[in-house]
Amino acid sequence: MDGIRALVFDVFGTLVDWRGSIARDARELLAPRGITIDGEAFADAWRAQYQPAMEDVRSGRLPFCKLDALHRRNLEAIAGDFGLSALDETTRVELNLAWHRLDAWPDVSAGLHRLRMKYRLAPCSNGNISLMVDLARRNYFPWDAIVGAELARDYKPKPVVYQSAAAAFDCAPHEVLMVAAHSSDLAAAAQAGLRTAFVARPDEKGPGLGEAHATVPVDLSVASLHELADRLHCAPV
Amino acid sequence: MDGIRALVFDVFGTLVDWRGSIARDARELLAPRGITIDGEAFADAWRAQYQPAMEDVRSGRLPFCKLDALHRRNLEAIAGDFGLSALDETTRVELNLAWHRLDAWPDVSAGLHRLRMKYRLAPCSNGNISLMVDLARRNYFPWDAIVGAELARDYKPKPVVYQSAAAAFDCAPHEVLMVAAHSSDLAAAAQAGLRTAFVARPDEKGPGLGEAHATVPVDLSVASLHELADRLHCAPV
Repeated sequence: MDGIRALVFDVFGTLVDWRGSIARDARELLAPRGITIDGEAFADAWRAQYQPAMEDVRSGRLPFCKLDALHRRNLEAIAGDFGLSALDETTRVELNLAWHRLDAWPDVSAGLHRLRMKYRLAPCSNGNISLMVDLARRNYFPWDAIVGAELARDYKPKPVVYQSAAAAFDCAPHEVLMVAAHSSDLAAAAQAGLRTAFVARPDEKGPGLGEAHATVPVDLSVASLHELADRLHCAPV
Repeated sequence: MDGIRALVFDVFGTLVDWRGSIARDARELLAPRGITIDGEAFADAWRAQYQPAMEDVRSGRLPFCKLDALHRRNLEAIAGDFGLSALDETTRVELNLAWHRLDAWPDVSAGLHRLRMKYRLAPCSNGNISLMVDLARRNYFPWDAIVGAELARDYKPKPVVYQSAAAAFDCAPHEVLMVAAHSSDLAAAAQAGLRTAFVARPDEKGPGLGEAHATVPVDLSVASLHELADRLHCAPV
């Protein structure tokens, strides 16, 4: 890993447990309003709209907009299936912000703090800047900057998102390590010239339903950010 | 100051002592190469090229480029006046990075940490993202994100720079307080709809040669970031 100067991270699934957090948040928000919801099924349905919505932007059918706006559109698409058709606007706005309240996997904050002693760090996510800021504040992520989709004004896996992340740090692509729990993300990052680290989140989409192993060639493969910090010879905290 | 949700900061002069730092850095870098330089005169000459260079971008004569690139062009413009015409390329590159090694005024790091307990914080500077990252690491600035010229792809005082800073935080302009030591910056921010705080840096351009008082109407006027934190009812650390 010689010559690596910055690490950039996928966030949804890699650093934070979107499924468990959306399930919890939706349940807690809706219960006082007399609505009982299958939180995990709701999270899965909402997330299933994610790639198709971004594809509208990647393909040029829709001008770039923040992921918050796509999440809201996706919420409208599934609301009827979960008995939320009559939900008032204030609650819809609040529910959409559940994506700003996701909880990190347990290794992430401490692992990032170790990595930050040696490298510049940023999320390279499809989430918008304000969403990344709220997740960082909630979970103590020590970012140097927020790069990714909103800076690039396009969505991963388009190469411009990875390349603009490197450029923001004055790095050549090969000086940047992309860290993600998804082989497709890492394949695109490698194609854009970045180096890649796979972190296993085997329960991301439900027990046993995440990627336990990368299905594409990667430069490093680890089980946690602590192992990543060890492999990159970062000091223990 | 009701309804303020984010604070954004001018950096050169407001948070960091560009004149003293460039003078020190240039002296220290050039002395081992046998070059003695009037550091303060050199800093003043380099900074004097700053607004004209950005005006080339603001006017559309030049496509947007990072401030690092403008600093380099400006260095070439003044090199001859300071006996640097024969300076090798490696040293020119290193000297240009003096802008990444500026030191903060003494109140800034502690003041920002107090303010961050209550507000989202970002620089809204004409400096590029990597420059902001390096200044933050050097001086312990606890930014939530880096916004400003590189995100907006234009230079202050163009309104898009202030407005894109507010938009990145999902804020209306009036929910953002722009903090600066320069009346012209604050006048432009107010014109863009932001609220404004003046912080006095009376020695910015040399002893007694900074702005001791705002020359335009501002919402707050303070002598340090500690006073700003007090006025905004932030807890002591």
